[in-house]
Amino acid sequence: MTKSKDRLIYLPLGGAGEIGMNTYVFGYGPEGKERLIVVDLGVSFPDMDSSPGVDLIMADISWLEANQSRVEAIFITHAHEDHVGGLGHLWPKIKAPVYARAFTAAIATLKMEEQGQPLDVIHVVKPRPEVVEAGPFRVQFVPVSHSIPESSALVIDTPAGRIVHTADFKLDGTPIVGEPFDPAEWHRIAHEGDGVKVLTCDSTNVFSPAPGRSEATLADPIAKLIAGREGMFVATTFASNVARLKTLAEAGRAAGRSVCLLGRAMKRMLTAAVETGVLKDFPPILEAEEAVEVPRGNLMLIVTGSQGERRAASAQLSRGKYLGLEMKERDTFLFSSKTIPGNERDVIRIMNAFSEMGVDVVDDHGGLYHVSGHANRPDLEAVHELLRPKILIPMHGEHRHLREHCKLGIAKGIAAELAVNGTMVDLTGDEPDIVEFIDTGRVYLDGTVLIGALDGVVRDRIRMALNGHVLVTVILDEDDQPLGEAWVETMGLTGVTRRGAPLTDAIEADLNEFLEGAPDKVLADDDKMDEAIRKIVRQVTLEEVGKKPEVTVVTSRLVAD
Amino acid sequence: MTKSKDRLIYLPLGGAGEIGMNTYVFGYGPEGKERLIVVDLGVSFPDMDSSPGVDLIMADISWLEANQSRVEAIFITHAHEDHVGGLGHLWPKIKAPVYARAFTAAIATLKMEEQGQPLDVIHVVKPRPEVVEAGPFRVQFVPVSHSIPESSALVIDTPAGRIVHTADFKLDGTPIVGEPFDPAEWHRIAHEGDGVKVLTCDSTNVFSPAPGRSEATLADPIAKLIAGREGMFVATTFASNVARLKTLAEAGRAAGRSVCLLGRAMKRMLTAAVETGVLKDFPPILEAEEAVEVPRGNLMLIVTGSQGERRAASAQLSRGKYLGLEMKERDTFLFSSKTIPGNERDVIRIMNAFSEMGVDVVDDHGGLYHVSGHANRPDLEAVHELLRPKILIPMHGEHRHLREHCKLGIAKGIAAELAVNGTMVDLTGDEPDIVEFIDTGRVYLDGTVLIGALDGVVRDRIRMALNGHVLVTVILDEDDQPLGEAWVETMGLTGVTRRGAPLTDAIEADLNEFLEGAPDKVLADDDKMDEAIRKIVRQVTLEEVGKKPEVTVVTSRLVAD
Repeated sequence: MTKSKDRLIYLPLGGAGEIGMNTYVFGYGPEGKERLIVVDLGVSFPDMDSSPGVDLIMADISWLEANQSRVEAIFITHAHEDHVGGLGHLWPKIKAPVYARAFTAAIATLKMEEQGQPLDVIHVVKPRPEVVEAGPFRVQFVPVSHSIPESSALVIDTPAGRIVHTADFKLDGTPIVGEPFDPAEWHRIAHEGDGVKVLTCDSTNVFSPAPGRSEATLADPIAKLIAGREGMFVATTFASNVARLKTLAEAGRAAGRSVCLLGRAMKRMLTAAVETGVLKDFPPILEAEEAVEVPRGNLMLIVTGSQGERRAASAQLSRGKYLGLEMKERDTFLFSSKTIPGNERDVIRIMNAFSEMGVDVVDDHGGLYHVSGHANRPDLEAVHELLRPKILIPMHGEHRHLREHCKLGIAKGIAAELAVNGTMVDLTGDEPDIVEFIDTGRVYLDGTVLIGALDGVVRDRIRMALNGHVLVTVILDEDDQPLGEAWVETMGLTGVTRRGAPLTDAIEADLNEFLEGAPDKVLADDDKMDEAIRKIVRQVTLEEVGKKPEVTVVTSRLVAD
Repeated sequence: MTKSKDRLIYLPLGGAGEIGMNTYVFGYGPEGKERLIVVDLGVSFPDMDSSPGVDLIMADISWLEANQSRVEAIFITHAHEDHVGGLGHLWPKIKAPVYARAFTAAIATLKMEEQGQPLDVIHVVKPRPEVVEAGPFRVQFVPVSHSIPESSALVIDTPAGRIVHTADFKLDGTPIVGEPFDPAEWHRIAHEGDGVKVLTCDSTNVFSPAPGRSEATLADPIAKLIAGREGMFVATTFASNVARLKTLAEAGRAAGRSVCLLGRAMKRMLTAAVETGVLKDFPPILEAEEAVEVPRGNLMLIVTGSQGERRAASAQLSRGKYLGLEMKERDTFLFSSKTIPGNERDVIRIMNAFSEMGVDVVDDHGGLYHVSGHANRPDLEAVHELLRPKILIPMHGEHRHLREHCKLGIAKGIAAELAVNGTMVDLTGDEPDIVEFIDTGRVYLDGTVLIGALDGVVRDRIRMALNGHVLVTVILDEDDQPLGEAWVETMGLTGVTRRGAPLTDAIEADLNEFLEGAPDKVLADDDKMDEAIRKIVRQVTLEEVGKKPEVTVVTSRLVAD
C-alpha cells in the first residue's frame, strides 16, 4: 500500500516538447529519495540551422547522473534511434541494468559495443506475463504494433498504482512482422486490480484525423506498382522497418525480381531480426556484386536513405554508380516512406537527381505506399477508451502535439497534464501535480566528445558560417611597440571589396593606422588591444563588403631573452 | 517573314531546374547576333545548409552582361521576389529599358530605388492590346490570375511566330483582386494569325492532380473560423497576396473585428496596390498603437511571416510582445498559406511557441484556408488544349516538374523539350533544337557584394560550421628559428579534450615538439611550415576530440632592422 510519505513521480528529460531523444524517468519513494527507473535513452539528429557539425543530440541527463545511486533500471521500449541511440553514450553516467526484448536488446548491444561499454548489463525480457522487478517497480513488456519489430508498451506497477507507458505504437491488427494489436490484452491490462492510474501516451499523430492504416494494406499497391515497371526497381524505407522490407521484398519476388539490399543499417536490422527469430521467410537476397549480373528488369534494390541522408545508398545512387550499380532511364525509385519535417530539401535533391537520369520517382503523395507507425487521433481516443486511465500524460510530441492530446483527454473527462522536458509531476493523487522543474536541455556528441548545447561551441560555428571569420596577428616588441605591421587573414569572406581592392589590404591599412597612433596604455593591455582591433575590423569589413565578421586577435609580445 | 539565316532562341538563366530566381531570355536574329529580351530578374532565398550568411541568390547573368548591347528590353511579369527581386542588383549589368504593368512597376521602382538605380528606365505598360516593340519582338501583357495583383503572361510575337510565356498563373474565374481567367481571350490569342508556336509554361503544380481552386472559395471557411473564436484573431499569409489580405480583412470586419496589419512588406504591398488602383474597398485598418486599445475579441491582426521568417511579425509575436501587441491564451493564429519545402522547421518552431502561449494554431492541413497560385495538372492540360502550341517548353520548376510537364505535353502530341538553366534552344523549326549550353550558375548577394556561388567563400563558411576553426601563430626570428612557442586559438571547437585537458594545450604541445625538431629547410619555407602545422593540428584534434578542423596558420618572420 502507498505509504503517506511516498510519492510516484514522472519526469521527462527528453521527448516531451519535441519529437526525438526520448528519455523518461519514473520514481517512487519518499520525496527526493524516490527509487528511479529510466525508460529509453534516445537521440535526435542535428541540422545545419541549429547544430552544424554535431553528430548526435541527446538529453542532458545531469539530474540522473547526480542521482545515479537511485536508478534501479533502464528499460528500452524499442530499437529506434530516438529510443535507444543514446544508450552507449549515456549508460556510463547511469550504470544501471538494461532491460529490453530480444530484437531491441540485439540493437542495444550493438550500441554498447560501439562505445566500448559492457554488454552483460543488457537483459533480454519476454513479454508479459514476465515481470522485471526494479525496486518498487514491477515492469512488464506489452507487445504493440509500430514500424519496427518488438516495439513494446510498458505496464509499470507501483505501490501507488499502475502506469501504462505506450511508447511508440499504432493499432495494427495485421502488422506483417511482429505481434498484432490485441484489444483483449489491453482490456485485461485495464481491468486487472485497480485498473490504470496513469497513461503516458504517444502523441505524434494527434493531428491526423483518420484512423491509422495497417501495414498489410501496402502489399497490393506496391505489388501492382512493381508489376507495371520495366527497368530496375528501387525502393527506400526506414532501415528498421523490417515489416516494410518484407512487404517490398515479397512484392519484388512476386514480380519475378531478385532482391538486393543496399545500406549497412538495413543489413544490420535484417540480421538482428533474423537472429532473434523476429523475421522468418524473408526472400533470399543478393549481394551487390551478384546483383550487377542480373538483368535490370529482373532486379529490385531495397536501399537506405529515405530521408535523403547524404551518405546513404539512395543519395549515393543519385550521384552515380554505387557498388557497381547505377540508375538509368526507365528505372523506378519508390519512396516507401514519409519525409520528416526538415528533411524536405535533401529528399527533393535526390528526386531531382533521379529525374535528371530519366528515373521515374514515386512517393507517398497519393497515400498508397506508406503507412505511419503511430496512432492517429481516433486511435488515441480508442486507447483512452480501452484503458480508462485516471491521469493522462501525453509524451512523444512537440508542445503542440502534447497540448492537443491533453485537450483530447480532458474532453473525455481524464485529468491530463502537459509536462514538457524537465517537468516533475507527482502522480500519487487523483490529479497530476507539477512539483518541480529540473534543469534539462541537450548535449551534443561532437566528434567523440559530449558538449553542452549552450557551451557556445556551436553558437560560434553558426556565427562563423553567417558572418565569416577574420584573424588578426599583431606582434609587439619588448617595449610593447608594434613590430612590423598587422597581418590579416580571412575565411568565409569575399577577398575583394566593392571597389575591387583586396579586403585584407583595406583592413590592414586601418589597423596599421591604429597601431601607429595607439597610446602606450592601449598597446600594453591585451584586452584593450583586442577590443580596439575587433572594432576596427568589423567597421572596415562592414563598410567594404557589408558584413560584420567574427574576429580573432592574436597579440604576440616578445620578451627580452 | 523569317529570313533563312535568322533564328528564334530561348535561354533560361534561372528558374528552369529550380523554383526561384526566374530569368529567361528570348532572342531573334542571325546566329550569335540575335537581338535579346529578358523576362524577369528574380531571386532565390538562401538557406543554412547550402548558403549560410548569404542575403539573396540570383542567376549568374555573365552571358547577358557579355551581350549587353544586344538586349532590347527587360519585361517583368509580376512583382513576386522570384521574378523582380534581382532587378536592382542586376539591372546595372544590362541597362535596358524595363517594362511592367502598373502594380509590378511600382514594386520594381522600389527595387531600383533601394539600389540607387535610375527609375526612369521603368515603363508602365497596359494590358493587351497595347504592344511593346523591342527590336524584332512585339510583346503584349496578358492579365492572368495568380497570388499577386496584375500577374501577366506575355504574348511575344516574333518573325518566327508567336510565343506565349505564361509566367506564374492559375485558372481562377473569381480571383477577388485583379482580372479573372478569361478563356475567350486565350482562345483569341490561340487563333490570331498562325496561332501559338511556342508555349513556355509554369510547371510548379504539375504533380497536383485535382483542378486548382479559386481564391473566392476561401471567404466562407475563413469567415466561419473567425466567427467562432473569442480571443484575438491573427492570420498570416504572403505579404504580396493582396487578394488574400482582402479576404482576411473582410472576414474579420464581418465578424465585428477591427483589422490591423503588421509587417513592413505587407504595408508596402497594400500601399502599392491602392496607389496603382489595383485594390479598392479595403476595410479601414488600424495602426498597432491603436490596435492595442481594442478589446482582444474585437481585434484581428494580419501579419507577415507565413514561412516562419525570424524577423517577420509572426516570429516576433511568437517570441513575446511586438509593437505593444501580445498573443495570449484563447487567441487564434491562422496560417493562410502553405509552407514552402525547406521552411518546415521555422514554421513548426512558431507553431510550438504559440502552443506554449495557449494560442490555438490553425493551418491549411484540411485544405480550407489556402489555395495555390499556380495551375494544377488538369489546369495545365486545359491550357495546352486552349493554346494548342506546336512546341512546349516547361519552365518555373525543378527538374522533376519540368520532366513531368514534358511528359504531359508529349502525351498530347506537342513537341516538348526539357531545357534547364543554360540550355539554349532553337525554336525556329517545328521541333525545339538544343543548340548550345551557356555557363550559368548562381551569384550571391553577400552583405553588399555579389560573389560567385563557386568562389569558395561560402564553402569555407560551411566547413568552419561543420569542423570548427583552429588558428596557429608561429613567430620565427631572423635566422628562421622559432621565437617562443606556437600559439593556438580555436573557434567552434570544444575547449576540453576527452581526457579533460585543454585542447589548445594538447595542440600546442605537439606543435612545439615539431618546431623544436623541424629541419631548417622546413622552418625556412612558408608552404612547408603551413602544411606540416596543418597536418599536426588536424591529427591532434582528431585524436583528442574526434574533429578535423579547418586550420589557418600565420607564420610571422622577424626581419633584422
